[in-house]
Amino acid sequence: MKIYRYPQQETWTELVKRPTLEQNEISELIAEIFKKVEDNGDRALIEFNKKFDKAETENISVTDAEIEKAENQISDELKIAIQEAKENISKFHTSQVPEIQKVETTKGVVCWRENRAVEKVGIYIPGGTAPLFSTVLMLAVPANLAGCKEIILCTPPDKDGNINPAILYAAKLCGVSKIFKTGGAQAVAAMALGTESIPKVYKIFGPGNQFVVAAKEYAQRYGVAIDMPAGPSEVLVIADEQAIPEFCAADLLSQAEHGSDSQVVFLTTDLKVFDETISAVGKQIRDLPRNEFANQSLENSSFIVMNSLEEAVEFSNLYAPEHLILAINDFEKYIPMIQNAGSVFLGNYSCESAGDYASGTNHTLPTNAYARNYSGVSLDSFVKKITFQHLSKEGLQNLGKTIEIMAEAEGLFAHKNAVSIRLK
Amino acid sequence: MKIYRYPQQETWTELVKRPTLEQNEISELIAEIFKKVEDNGDRALIEFNKKFDKAETENISVTDAEIEKAENQISDELKIAIQEAKENISKFHTSQVPEIQKVETTKGVVCWRENRAVEKVGIYIPGGTAPLFSTVLMLAVPANLAGCKEIILCTPPDKDGNINPAILYAAKLCGVSKIFKTGGAQAVAAMALGTESIPKVYKIFGPGNQFVVAAKEYAQRYGVAIDMPAGPSEVLVIADEQAIPEFCAADLLSQAEHGSDSQVVFLTTDLKVFDETISAVGKQIRDLPRNEFANQSLENSSFIVMNSLEEAVEFSNLYAPEHLILAINDFEKYIPMIQNAGSVFLGNYSCESAGDYASGTNHTLPTNAYARNYSGVSLDSFVKKITFQHLSKEGLQNLGKTIEIMAEAEGLFAHKNAVSIRLK
Repeated sequence: MKIYRYPQQETWTELVKRPTLEQNEISELIAEIFKKVEDNGDRALIEFNKKFDKAETENISVTDAEIEKAENQISDELKIAIQEAKENISKFHTSQVPEIQKVETTKGVVCWRENRAVEKVGIYIPGGTAPLFSTVLMLAVPANLAGCKEIILCTPPDKDGNINPAILYAAKLCGVSKIFKTGGAQAVAAMALGTESIPKVYKIFGPGNQFVVAAKEYAQRYGVAIDMPAGPSEVLVIADEQAIPEFCAADLLSQAEHGSDSQVVFLTTDLKVFDETISAVGKQIRDLPRNEFANQSLENSSFIVMNSLEEAVEFSNLYAPEHLILAINDFEKYIPMIQNAGSVFLGNYSCESAGDYASGTNHTLPTNAYARNYSGVSLDSFVKKITFQHLSKEGLQNLGKTIEIMAEAEGLFAHKNAVSIRLK
Repeated sequence: MKIYRYPQQETWTELVKRPTLEQNEISELIAEIFKKVEDNGDRALIEFNKKFDKAETENISVTDAEIEKAENQISDELKIAIQEAKENISKFHTSQVPEIQKVETTKGVVCWRENRAVEKVGIYIPGGTAPLFSTVLMLAVPANLAGCKEIILCTPPDKDGNINPAILYAAKLCGVSKIFKTGGAQAVAAMALGTESIPKVYKIFGPGNQFVVAAKEYAQRYGVAIDMPAGPSEVLVIADEQAIPEFCAADLLSQAEHGSDSQVVFLTTDLKVFDETISAVGKQIRDLPRNEFANQSLENSSFIVMNSLEEAVEFSNLYAPEHLILAINDFEKYIPMIQNAGSVFLGNYSCESAGDYASGTNHTLPTNAYARNYSGVSLDSFVKKITFQHLSKEGLQNLGKTIEIMAEAEGLFAHKNAVSIRLK
């Protein structure tokens, strides 16, 4: 835990730096995996399951029977919770469907945009320490709302060759078309290239380890789009004097438990809240099953006393956090000042877990300062916005001269002629 | 010119293939250029101007005096045309500013999105055979509307060290903050890394040759975003029996003149329109100053007779053209069937040049089948959509149980605790 009191602005650039990620030279390995998947298709994936996941899988496609079985394996309580989360995510993402708005820019010239789904999308869900069925909801719900025709999901099998039942249940509930037992870079390769079982997709979504991240980057060579570049998860909390230290500590820890490389930043203007939050972190961490991760990530994290809330927001904009919690009384005043953040949580009761699971906002968000230039996943991520235009004869008469003059000035006479020939 | 009549669907995959682009091994060169710009800043750029553009430039910053001079160098006619185009582009892109829409997903849980500008953006405008001041409008107008604080522009100088006056005029008119005389991969490197004169930006926009395209790709390693991957420009025209062959030919040629690698596809259901369009192309091409480019690009282009308009749209969706012209009577019927396209032009009077210059839609569009998974540039390209949420105490009471159950099922107890501690 790094502690700073009223740091000078000149030092901020240093303070907002993320720890340098290990840039392992894995590109050769990724290229090899892509080659094997390209050459051997499903067979390569079955071999990789054995090699990397120690799993025997005769078939990589999840069967209907397996999905049905999964439904019986999870509690009604969890099913209801997943359904409620799905409902909220649907509500919020439905509000992102724009109405078609036709604009007459010049008399007789009408322009508008229409959404069209990305027809084939692939969702990657990691295995590992936590079965992220919530990410299934966050990606499959908007994909389905957008109208994607093919929504496939890849996730690594456990040692018995099975997929976590909550992942299967959520996938079925949210309209995933096909589920496959394959993980890591090879799953990404399969979605980018296609195999006998796995259809080639146009866009790949979802989190993963450094191999998955590198594979998504590599996949773009094959014309595939990806949701966004990735890095470890982060939260920045800004607290004023009426913030509740126990709440702040709980929010910081809920980020810190993600992994040893998670980023946690705490800013406050109040010395009492500062000290009490630090002490509450120490107290709460003891009872956490994942406190090893939390302890490691706290080592890299900063707790900073600020001169003012304005200054804190300014610092936050420079840091550009994935999650920003404004545990302050007068949060409405500060909203317009927020420039760079993935998702913002307002007041004492808007904990990050709400957005992680069930409030309705998407939890696939830009990390590693990418909140400066990327948005989180939304309905927009699953569509293309196509522009349409109609010029009547009158419209072209009104605009034609302008087009001709500009085309000629650019030396593009065929562009000019396309107008002139119509105006003759 | 490749001619096909009623090709079988099985052959389409072959027909929609773009000619393979030369994958020159230029990555080493790009890395070198980035290194030089990183090490030597402005000095490197001045040297590159000499080396690549044969231009002596003492200073890479364009001065106010140069901009003022440019204003006097271009005709009033062109100024008025540029202003009219700007007006239309502004109108259409202003319509893309969304209203904030608050959604109460659960009682006491309110979620919404707000746009925030990407603070620093860089625009690249190529030099070369055509001075693309229209692209300045297409990128600077939405950047300005979005509220980008810093909008910089890089473009290579001519042999006398000057920039085309129409580019300078358009840049000033559209609120570009700073203009620099530097082109090619080195301009992209400068915007990604920053130099003494050129500020580092968060997102880079604009077309360019293979070096610029490769440099934009490379720039992403430095955390910079780019508008989209690039390829040669394309148009696909679908014509029915009432299409006017001379208009179709003019549209096809206005694409073909862009460069020898431009892509042109013509689909029609009518044999008379088919023959007459081919003959009109032959006639019109003779008078074009850029007919060498047009002739070369026509060699790779396809003219295809189709069984039905439905089939033609289906083919077009598979091809995913940058520009799609529906020179058909009943175009409204076919709009819902369009799945993959950058921008669509409807009817006999909506020529592509209208959208290229002045109707209001953006001309920075996905090529090379990227219309399957990318949108063209719009206001959205210059903003991040940040999600906000506010849970009242009651809101968390209503949603808390759901969050707790899901967090526990994912094994993330600190996530659960952030709720539990608040509900206590």
